[in-house]
Amino acid sequence: MVEMLNGFALDLGGTKLAAARFANGKLAQKAQMPTQANADFEQLTDNMEELLAGLGFQKGDRLGVALTGRLDQQGYWSAVNGGTLPKINNIDVRTALIDRFGTYLTILNDAAAAACGEAHFGVGRGVDIFGYITISTGVGGGIVLKGQPLTSPNGLAGHIGFMRSPIGEQLCGSGRFGTVESVAGGRAIALQAQRAGHADCEARDVFLAHQQGQAWASIIVSRAAQAIAIQIADLTSIFGLGRVAVGGSIGLAQGFIPLIKQYLVDEPELFRPEIAPAALGGDSPLYGVLTG
Amino acid sequence: MVEMLNGFALDLGGTKLAAARFANGKLAQKAQMPTQANADFEQLTDNMEELLAGLGFQKGDRLGVALTGRLDQQGYWSAVNGGTLPKINNIDVRTALIDRFGTYLTILNDAAAAACGEAHFGVGRGVDIFGYITISTGVGGGIVLKGQPLTSPNGLAGHIGFMRSPIGEQLCGSGRFGTVESVAGGRAIALQAQRAGHADCEARDVFLAHQQGQAWASIIVSRAAQAIAIQIADLTSIFGLGRVAVGGSIGLAQGFIPLIKQYLVDEPELFRPEIAPAALGGDSPLYGVLTG
Repeated sequence: MVEMLNGFALDLGGTKLAAARFANGKLAQKAQMPTQANADFEQLTDNMEELLAGLGFQKGDRLGVALTGRLDQQGYWSAVNGGTLPKINNIDVRTALIDRFGTYLTILNDAAAAACGEAHFGVGRGVDIFGYITISTGVGGGIVLKGQPLTSPNGLAGHIGFMRSPIGEQLCGSGRFGTVESVAGGRAIALQAQRAGHADCEARDVFLAHQQGQAWASIIVSRAAQAIAIQIADLTSIFGLGRVAVGGSIGLAQGFIPLIKQYLVDEPELFRPEIAPAALGGDSPLYGVLTG
Repeated sequence: MVEMLNGFALDLGGTKLAAARFANGKLAQKAQMPTQANADFEQLTDNMEELLAGLGFQKGDRLGVALTGRLDQQGYWSAVNGGTLPKINNIDVRTALIDRFGTYLTILNDAAAAACGEAHFGVGRGVDIFGYITISTGVGGGIVLKGQPLTSPNGLAGHIGFMRSPIGEQLCGSGRFGTVESVAGGRAIALQAQRAGHADCEARDVFLAHQQGQAWASIIVSRAAQAIAIQIADLTSIFGLGRVAVGGSIGLAQGFIPLIKQYLVDEPELFRPEIAPAALGGDSPLYGVLTG
């Protein structure tokens, strides 16, 4: 059983840094700021400290920190996708965060944390083999096997956005060609818009244009949904998933999950798990990082 | 720790049915016959009984049975690939085998058993996150996480041959399009030979022609190796694999692993685990099914 949530949580993603205070099992207070993509580790921890101070954190309080990127079992942290936090390379983050915030600390990859949050408090409750896919700047995820997140000594486990997609046509920030992230991630969607003659479009503009019925945008959004549907069937062949939660700003964008389900119908029944929108929205890593 | 191997083991694959007697931790005796592809369950268990009798098995002896296909947690067994044992559909195999052979029985998917065999007695020893890929009639595999095989309630876990391949162009017996099996499995290789104008070729003939420098065959074999290399990198992004064993009659065919390694060089370093030939050859399921 997961104990009652109490303490503080941080979630450092490619887009935002969020902080939360949990009390009596509930999210009591939250604060956030944009992630400075080019910040070094010192600046990032200053930002963390600032947010936590606003929530009443005191050194030595219980703290969970969810981090984007690869976190190995020795507590070293590296960016995987060169486009996200490029200055983070092999940093002894466990030691540094304990120095700054005290010893009552857990650290976890942000997508693994989100998967745990959904598994214990969201749509993964009661599911033995649960998958979580988050689609925002990039594509990440986590697999929770009987309540425990899948992890590996090198910290790579769960980087499912770096699986190849049969419809991938671009190089990905991971260095792999044609990954799911290179089709469905926000950065890739903006790039495809640019190539379609719509410069200065962010992913959200592409989604707006799609919702307004503009064909160029619908092609891009549909391809993204198709890549995720194929990925879900792939992960089901590997894990025998019972349910998959889809989250992230793109995953939860209006109409996106129905599109995924539409493409999933192309797969044999055995490879079609239940799909549910992540119930905790963007807060899932904050919940999950305190369940470890 | 795994106890010392003792008892009897059966391995029913798409091509052959093998039986073994283990004594004092060693494989003492072995027997096998071809799998009758169109046999019903009664015939298959008759064949099993015949092989076991030749090894001195008596009802009630310890017995492990590795089975190709999907084995759910209730002990029901179904073919997944319609080309392999098409008459096997939702059979209560646990009950039937206990009736026939006694209660001291473990059953496991054949590829999961093979993965366990390699993890405990072969090239996976000492590796936390270990992958096993077997390429013969089809493509299967297993993942062993800290000594335990990855399984799922629906029995689908580990069917990694049914992942999509970006170079897949054919329908697969699983009903999915463009899977790894549809590029690299023996049946697919024979089909590609036929399409290249070489009818009545089995996979082994294609490999012979490749080894003799015939370009049409080398194209087919190279595509198979490329599909496996991409799959290994995919599985590494998902699991953070430390080492991968490659087995099966095609996996262990002369020159195939070097070709896989050649294609793996196209992947970023992070996605290139160690590759090793399965050390137990075709016997790995026999070893592994007794480790459970």
